[in-house]
Amino acid sequence: MLPNGLPSLFDSAHFGQNAVSVLPLLEAYLSDDSMRGLQLVDPDVLLRKARALMAAEDAAIVPLDRERLKAILQLYIQTGIQVHSPGFMGRQFSGVVPLSGVIDMVSSVVNQPSSFYEAGQLPNVAEHIMADTLNQFIGYHPDVFTMITTSGGSLANLTALLAARNYYYPDVWTNGMAELGGGSYLPAIAISEDAHYSITRAIGILGIGERQIVRLPVNAARQIDIHQVEAIIDRATGDGLKVYCMVASAGSTSVGSFDPIDELGDIANKRNIWLHVDGAHGASLLVSDELRYKLKGVHKADSLTWDAHKMLFVPSPCSMLFYKNKEKSNGAFQQVASYVFDKEPTIYAEFESAERNFECTKRPMIMNLWVLWALHGRALFSGKIDHLCRLARQAHYELEMTEDFVPVNYPECNILCFKYQPLAWNEEELPDLQVEIRNRICARGQFFISKVDIDEQPVLRVVFMNHDTTIAHFRALLHEIAETGKQLIHEYQETVTFKNA
Amino acid sequence: MLPNGLPSLFDSAHFGQNAVSVLPLLEAYLSDDSMRGLQLVDPDVLLRKARALMAAEDAAIVPLDRERLKAILQLYIQTGIQVHSPGFMGRQFSGVVPLSGVIDMVSSVVNQPSSFYEAGQLPNVAEHIMADTLNQFIGYHPDVFTMITTSGGSLANLTALLAARNYYYPDVWTNGMAELGGGSYLPAIAISEDAHYSITRAIGILGIGERQIVRLPVNAARQIDIHQVEAIIDRATGDGLKVYCMVASAGSTSVGSFDPIDELGDIANKRNIWLHVDGAHGASLLVSDELRYKLKGVHKADSLTWDAHKMLFVPSPCSMLFYKNKEKSNGAFQQVASYVFDKEPTIYAEFESAERNFECTKRPMIMNLWVLWALHGRALFSGKIDHLCRLARQAHYELEMTEDFVPVNYPECNILCFKYQPLAWNEEELPDLQVEIRNRICARGQFFISKVDIDEQPVLRVVFMNHDTTIAHFRALLHEIAETGKQLIHEYQETVTFKNA
Repeated sequence: MLPNGLPSLFDSAHFGQNAVSVLPLLEAYLSDDSMRGLQLVDPDVLLRKARALMAAEDAAIVPLDRERLKAILQLYIQTGIQVHSPGFMGRQFSGVVPLSGVIDMVSSVVNQPSSFYEAGQLPNVAEHIMADTLNQFIGYHPDVFTMITTSGGSLANLTALLAARNYYYPDVWTNGMAELGGGSYLPAIAISEDAHYSITRAIGILGIGERQIVRLPVNAARQIDIHQVEAIIDRATGDGLKVYCMVASAGSTSVGSFDPIDELGDIANKRNIWLHVDGAHGASLLVSDELRYKLKGVHKADSLTWDAHKMLFVPSPCSMLFYKNKEKSNGAFQQVASYVFDKEPTIYAEFESAERNFECTKRPMIMNLWVLWALHGRALFSGKIDHLCRLARQAHYELEMTEDFVPVNYPECNILCFKYQPLAWNEEELPDLQVEIRNRICARGQFFISKVDIDEQPVLRVVFMNHDTTIAHFRALLHEIAETGKQLIHEYQETVTFKNA
Repeated sequence: MLPNGLPSLFDSAHFGQNAVSVLPLLEAYLSDDSMRGLQLVDPDVLLRKARALMAAEDAAIVPLDRERLKAILQLYIQTGIQVHSPGFMGRQFSGVVPLSGVIDMVSSVVNQPSSFYEAGQLPNVAEHIMADTLNQFIGYHPDVFTMITTSGGSLANLTALLAARNYYYPDVWTNGMAELGGGSYLPAIAISEDAHYSITRAIGILGIGERQIVRLPVNAARQIDIHQVEAIIDRATGDGLKVYCMVASAGSTSVGSFDPIDELGDIANKRNIWLHVDGAHGASLLVSDELRYKLKGVHKADSLTWDAHKMLFVPSPCSMLFYKNKEKSNGAFQQVASYVFDKEPTIYAEFESAERNFECTKRPMIMNLWVLWALHGRALFSGKIDHLCRLARQAHYELEMTEDFVPVNYPECNILCFKYQPLAWNEEELPDLQVEIRNRICARGQFFISKVDIDEQPVLRVVFMNHDTTIAHFRALLHEIAETGKQLIHEYQETVTFKNA
């Protein structure tokens, strides 16, 4: 006997009605072009609201209450960062192309994990197509390269560093890292001062150890200073380290700077070092004829992380990891499980990633990207990217023209950092001014911006992800920042006067 | 200037129309109760079909062709394993509760990465609620335990083993594993003979090394043989290994056996060993009053992996990692990134997982589980689980009653392995018989089943995930297997006669 009420939850008409009842919420959300950032709610308040929306527990299955469903989803929509509003300039996640919501609905219902060809035939084929399509802009040898999708840029970076470790130290998988402790050179990885935390995290996880990180200093544009690289590697060798891997950023997280991949590729090649490019944010510039040059030489890299959920405007996660050489990708993981891996190579093997990606059950994340590409072509992506990066350059110009503002970087992509810094004001008096400004701006709810520490000093940061944002919105933001900054300085000076009185 | 055609792709009415146009495909799919497994297509054939569905590249954005969209999604739906058909008995992924497709549509459009409270307020609160709700059945101290969501059971297992490594070897994160090579005991992990490949994979990744795996033999029911555990750990110590971590399965992948967690917990406690329970498949039995006893003593485990995308019937991934002690979870990752991590603890900190989960950008995967639980209560899950496990026991009885079949395990949950083995037949003559049967059954397209190696011998395997599957369907499967088996033996004998002739 089936439990009462179970079949109705799997009923197709019931499903359709639920979907139709929810659509107006999303349509209203998407058509709302008001300026809004985030309404930050005290977690305990939200916790009470959420609990109040739950049906009372019952021994039987509680039948659907569609009003409850709508109330829950409405709360979900309202309490998020409003990524589809022009006021959202804060982070590297995007208001996605809405159609991907529909594609994801299909993906969820048909539930095809895509590590194995058998379990997700079209997703595996779509990965193949997107690999070829995007490799046109990378330039790897088409018969030798490969690509896997994986759950996020952090996992792509870990997988690449793991493949590199296993390539240079093939016995470690079996014997462990401890065997490397016997007096010889310790494995080391050279990374930018500004590398993403997922890189240092991966180094901790893999058993390399943070102490074996060789930091490469950056120049004024916060790109790895190419003139210092070789000397630093030599010095590391002198300290008993073997730098077998180097990580460049293509779009650093803080300011969106692009490391000199072309020159780093030459150094890596000459010294037999694995070059990994973390292009989580900026690899997408490859699809733009206007901006591709930022990644010049990327075909020299051994591996490349590329998040489609950032600048290709699909829901997260959709991360891709490209390898110059297929063979080297096979070294990341080394094992056998009979219930999934066939012993004999089959015609499906080339379409399967389970031996080359971390996950066993993996969401068919490529479908969002492939379907959008299949329907609308490259211009959807390149057009939007060009637009956003142009907007960032305009905003930089605006900053230079506006009194009391100082840009921190010239935007190489769509990330721009700056400070509110009135001439007659000594920063050191109130070192948290930028942080306080950011918090007040966000609290007011019209704009969502972020902050980042550059050389341990906090600065304001905008990331242009929404093409509805215009330079007029940015001007309005600057106006609000200036007002807020003046107010904060005024409050501070009042306090000082009061204390001194 | 915005690229031509870009705004229309973000238009709310356009989005709604797209969703409505796709719904009939999903409704037809869900209402089709025919017996079907998988139509396996040659990848090259599918590749050509998929490419033919792509719009021609153009310098401008190609406007939406809704017929193309529907054709693509129709192909997607058709080529998957038909998880909503009663013929699907093959793997541990499920025909999800269809409403989760609608929830995922919302999640994709509003795109709230949930590693940070700010970026996904309701998902973080929902994680809190589900942690408390599910912990009622685990029994950890409510003020001391914690839970994170992460992208798949493999990542949950890796994270737990990492937390354990860093707890016992706190300097490894900084100094690397190599420093442990100086003559002292090597770190080792004890796991079942039948542990999932993600466990051995994690041991390779973390730099422990597969050679430091201590294998615990299983009994006839393929549970860790508790009587041998202590002696084996002692022997490992004699071999220069320090077993600091032990992994039990709650629902092994091959036959769904449950290791003796209660007794393993006592041994782990006595010997100061971290006990991790991989309950990816079977932890869900905790919500069933009838089956909870299978995980007796789970509150003694230091950590527990629990995949909601298996037996809680939501789309993948939705993995949870529980820790008995919050403090220990903080040790998994150890670092700072200014643009995301605040230096001062805030009221939000308790609701954030970024310092405790691997991902930076993480899908708000908990929403599917929480919304279903909020709407329908526990009975939806426990009712379906009870039903599926009962079905497996019925199927076992059926096997025992049916000539020429031999069950390999008595089902502890919803996984049942067996062989087609006519009395008058010597297995050794045709060792691939079970594999051949499985391939033919799948190729015929009515049923989808899997195979697994037990003691290096292939056997047939069914996993009951769909409540539409009845014992009559299973009988029909046995009938088809018997016919197929007879045919294969007949073909084999013909060949032998021919050769001998």
